[in-house]
Amino acid sequence: MKLTKLLPAAALVALPVMGFAQEAEAVAGVDASTDSMFIFNSLLFLIGGFLVFWMAAGFAMLEAGLVRTKNVAMQLTKNVALFSLAAIFYYLIGYNLMYPLGTWSIDGVLSGVWSTAALEAVGVARDGADDYGYASTGSDFFFQLMFCATTASIVSGTLAERIKLWPFLAFTVVLTAIIYPLQASWKWGGGFLDAAGFLDFAGSTVVHSVGGWAALAGVLILGPRIGKYKDGRINPIPGSNLSLATLGTFILWLGWFGFNGASQLAMGTVGDVADISRIFANTNAAAAGGSVAAMILTQLLYKKVDLTMVLNGALAGLVSITAEPLTPTLGAATLIGAFGGILVVLVVPMLDKLKIDDVVGAIPVHLVCGIYGTIAVAFTNSDASFGTQLYGIVVVGIFTFVVSSVLWFILKVTMGIRVSEEDEINGLDKAELGMEAYPEFSKG
Amino acid sequence: MKLTKLLPAAALVALPVMGFAQEAEAVAGVDASTDSMFIFNSLLFLIGGFLVFWMAAGFAMLEAGLVRTKNVAMQLTKNVALFSLAAIFYYLIGYNLMYPLGTWSIDGVLSGVWSTAALEAVGVARDGADDYGYASTGSDFFFQLMFCATTASIVSGTLAERIKLWPFLAFTVVLTAIIYPLQASWKWGGGFLDAAGFLDFAGSTVVHSVGGWAALAGVLILGPRIGKYKDGRINPIPGSNLSLATLGTFILWLGWFGFNGASQLAMGTVGDVADISRIFANTNAAAAGGSVAAMILTQLLYKKVDLTMVLNGALAGLVSITAEPLTPTLGAATLIGAFGGILVVLVVPMLDKLKIDDVVGAIPVHLVCGIYGTIAVAFTNSDASFGTQLYGIVVVGIFTFVVSSVLWFILKVTMGIRVSEEDEINGLDKAELGMEAYPEFSKG
Amino acid sequence: MKLTKLLPAAALVALPVMGFAQEAEAVAGVDASTDSMFIFNSLLFLIGGFLVFWMAAGFAMLEAGLVRTKNVAMQLTKNVALFSLAAIFYYLIGYNLMYPLGTWSIDGVLSGVWSTAALEAVGVARDGADDYGYASTGSDFFFQLMFCATTASIVSGTLAERIKLWPFLAFTVVLTAIIYPLQASWKWGGGFLDAAGFLDFAGSTVVHSVGGWAALAGVLILGPRIGKYKDGRINPIPGSNLSLATLGTFILWLGWFGFNGASQLAMGTVGDVADISRIFANTNAAAAGGSVAAMILTQLLYKKVDLTMVLNGALAGLVSITAEPLTPTLGAATLIGAFGGILVVLVVPMLDKLKIDDVVGAIPVHLVCGIYGTIAVAFTNSDASFGTQLYGIVVVGIFTFVVSSVLWFILKVTMGIRVSEEDEINGLDKAELGMEAYPEFSKG
Repeated sequence: MKLTKLLPAAALVALPVMGFAQEAEAVAGVDASTDSMFIFNSLLFLIGGFLVFWMAAGFAMLEAGLVRTKNVAMQLTKNVALFSLAAIFYYLIGYNLMYPLGTWSIDGVLSGVWSTAALEAVGVARDGADDYGYASTGSDFFFQLMFCATTASIVSGTLAERIKLWPFLAFTVVLTAIIYPLQASWKWGGGFLDAAGFLDFAGSTVVHSVGGWAALAGVLILGPRIGKYKDGRINPIPGSNLSLATLGTFILWLGWFGFNGASQLAMGTVGDVADISRIFANTNAAAAGGSVAAMILTQLLYKKVDLTMVLNGALAGLVSITAEPLTPTLGAATLIGAFGGILVVLVVPMLDKLKIDDVVGAIPVHLVCGIYGTIAVAFTNSDASFGTQLYGIVVVGIFTFVVSSVLWFILKVTMGIRVSEEDEINGLDKAELGMEAYPEFSKG
Repeated sequence: MKLTKLLPAAALVALPVMGFAQEAEAVAGVDASTDSMFIFNSLLFLIGGFLVFWMAAGFAMLEAGLVRTKNVAMQLTKNVALFSLAAIFYYLIGYNLMYPLGTWSIDGVLSGVWSTAALEAVGVARDGADDYGYASTGSDFFFQLMFCATTASIVSGTLAERIKLWPFLAFTVVLTAIIYPLQASWKWGGGFLDAAGFLDFAGSTVVHSVGGWAALAGVLILGPRIGKYKDGRINPIPGSNLSLATLGTFILWLGWFGFNGASQLAMGTVGDVADISRIFANTNAAAAGGSVAAMILTQLLYKKVDLTMVLNGALAGLVSITAEPLTPTLGAATLIGAFGGILVVLVVPMLDKLKIDDVVGAIPVHLVCGIYGTIAVAFTNSDASFGTQLYGIVVVGIFTFVVSSVLWFILKVTMGIRVSEEDEINGLDKAELGMEAYPEFSKG
Repeated sequence: MKLTKLLPAAALVALPVMGFAQEAEAVAGVDASTDSMFIFNSLLFLIGGFLVFWMAAGFAMLEAGLVRTKNVAMQLTKNVALFSLAAIFYYLIGYNLMYPLGTWSIDGVLSGVWSTAALEAVGVARDGADDYGYASTGSDFFFQLMFCATTASIVSGTLAERIKLWPFLAFTVVLTAIIYPLQASWKWGGGFLDAAGFLDFAGSTVVHSVGGWAALAGVLILGPRIGKYKDGRINPIPGSNLSLATLGTFILWLGWFGFNGASQLAMGTVGDVADISRIFANTNAAAAGGSVAAMILTQLLYKKVDLTMVLNGALAGLVSITAEPLTPTLGAATLIGAFGGILVVLVVPMLDKLKIDDVVGAIPVHLVCGIYGTIAVAFTNSDASFGTQLYGIVVVGIFTFVVSSVLWFILKVTMGIRVSEEDEINGLDKAELGMEAYPEFSKG
């Protein structure tokens, strides 16, 4: 059986039931047939996959709404390009690096032989399917690809408004071809973190913190935007289009049902579809908790509600529940999300004090809440231990941060990663694209 | 069997077939297995649910596009916040108020004991499922929650550009915790309206008119925007972004396939999936009829097509078909929608004459067409009687309007519901949020 | 058995297995039951259908983003109206013209009797279903309708900013009632092109080139926008909102999974769902290839990346893979898409040299890549021959171009198709609608 993203330990015990064993045990008219299970599982990946694809649009709209008009076209370009490159390089290298074709060795850290991703034959028969009894390889590839692309989407927002296009895309290639798949294999490819009992259901650590660490490494080397920190003051730089930012948030929220729900990885039994239902409800609850908490907290702290915090609060709730969207009750999910929303409101000004200029708040949302959400697993899932969760967070964090830092540094000294001061002031759209996102709207 | 939203009377007869009885009657290789039925039904709720969730984004974009730039950020904030609060309070109170845990009494109006919504256990087995033979509780909760949130979304548009944030949200809490679930229980919880034979397939009355009544009560107490009715003249106040408004309409149209289609409440038999297919086709036909009728009528009446009327015409068609999207032929569905579109074009100026300042046209669309659509059931469904349909409309209308009016009045005399004249003129964004949606675009 | 969009020849052999024959051959607990197959297939059409519906919003956003602000409201109006008219006229005439109720005659070109589309009865039983063993008629109608509407959506972009509303809509009526369904019947209705072995999986020719030919006929008769070609120079006219254009592209990309994936037309067997999975993955790969190729090529040619070319490159990749999204490997799909992206970058300036003023690039994307994609089938599908592919392209092209040209000409001499010079300069929004899309944003 192809490993795919591994099910939690408890579910693994039940897995054989889904395979050929099913035939023998089948109760006529009660079980779904083995064919039906294969279809249900594949369909889950396809629906989940297109929902997570849609998150690429969400990141694009969120980020386009939170940068200034002079950088909007560039931010859009980066988001389309990074997704496309992720698709190509996850196919070329990443997929089979994440789920190696050979056997694990070197303690499961890196091994096997790999090649480009290959799908099953056209019109495959039961005995020709790679995983009859489970799901089609194409559906798994499609679904897993979207997680890789999401990781890359997280990085672009933090570094907006001053990073050059091509070095950014070069980083994206390495991130999606190697960094993401390699560390993901440690957990979801059945590697040493999985063996250690580290739990990360849909990727608070594997996806979100990895994107966050890569973004943090980048922003430390890239530095803040001109004018953001001046004369000891923090100058707010408002986003140009909060309608787009809100749209992006709703898109991400929608896509997250696929992100978390389809990470159940199976839909062919009563238990699986009931679990997916729990996950949908909990994911929604956490987002709601996060946005309400951020709304109330900004009202209390600043006497005014801050829409961008409400949006980031919802996203924070979503990231926070991602490591364990199944086991919490609805109430616990709401609280887990709410605490994520509070974290974001508190961390954003802290980053500014450290002069870490994260344009869209991706570090508080994806890194901080990714870590927090991974730790929070231990509160609701008795299979998790705080120690092991921390171990996984630290291992993935050190790896991603160090490799990303080296890579950003190499890009800096070779291609250069920052546009000229003149280009930054005039905006990346004119400088690097020669076009404007809103050419007819006068700028105030 | 958990009641969930009850199927129409005709379908109820067939319901036992879907339960455990299935096992005995199953024809090997012909029936879907009982597990498959459970999965199909749950999947219907999950897909329907995420489509209806998406309508929250549709309302946000529609309303953000139809208010002036100075109020856009606030309108976005309200839409994110109301959805989040609906999620929390439907969980805390509404769900089990709508489907009481105990038995009905006081003539089914209000009864039982309730608690917060609770999902089935993780990895539930067949005999542990709340409704094995039907669907998972989590999927039902997720789906039903979205209808509650939709009701709240309807209110925000009417009252835009002058209502204070927090009193509006306080109303939302009561609406989603109590008003919506209580009246919904009368029909969909198996209460006295259901017993009386009142038919409302997906909620022309239960959802749309309720949102409309709550909005009407609010607007009567809140009053029109400054400058809307001046010196005996009606001053049009154009929306700031018709691209957003159109996007919002398309989003709502898409979401409506889930809203109406998944209200079939079952997908595990040939008859059910064929019915869902009818519903999808009819829902689309009604929207098309509504928009074309509104387009032609505005051309005839005003010599120019009015885009906002075309959009509201589509929405009017959708609301109109919602009470009975199954029984009409495609032609009848188109006509039912078309008449809804005509109604909207005619009612909008009538409201203005009454100085009812409904910013986005939610009252014509959701209240007027909600009533009309509920009556129209009697034209295509022989189980419906005009008298009973009117009875349901009136009962729900009086209840919602009276309770909402009392609530708005209490909010007015306690918190105050309207911003100051100065804040209204400067815009709610600056006054209540301290931010702008489009800070760089000069205002004409 | 209702023809629906016919499966490729190879799959046709397997089709009887999906019907009643299933009962006899069923292996208990292994095959999906016949009911389940009916549900899976219908569900595929419903999901595919709502995803393709969503493409209507994609076209609306793409086109609204690529026209100038003074024409945005009109472009939105056209997109809502054309979809609605397509829904009505495909129901009234097109559906049964495409899949005639009678028998084929006159060499299968035109025949049979037709009436308006009719769905199965409410709550249909197995033996009452039109196609028990396959799928519900309503789901098929819903799905096929969306393809018809897509064809119409393609036309509106090319002709933007100077065509009158009502003649455009008159053309849409004929296109969706007759032109599209008639030629579609030649292939997908089982007509002479299908008999000849012409292959077009999801419609590179049947949908995209037809929209492209209709647009080309229109633009040749309509002429370029004022000021586009002046004093021998080509004046770029930048789109007003690249955020919207990008959003539209992402929407189209998402919808395309339904467009191509559900064109597999069946999901009830292992082979079918595995094929759908292949299609999803390949469709995504082609879009990625197209956008990356366009990005690199514009950088090489113009020393700057052109966002609109990146977007059109993604769409070009999607159109190119549409004729055969199943048989290519992931690598081949990426390359097929990439070559589509290159084509677009090269063809856009060629059209300008010919003074063919295509506002959004629909002719390069949908016509040129539609043709190219249809030819490319022969590279990956051994059942295809270049000759037959060319034959289909030419037959459909001549028919569509000639009929469209005659129709545009008739509209020109009767209603007039072009707005006055004054109206064009002032913008169609003020002239024909009396409203603006962004009334508050000062124009630069």
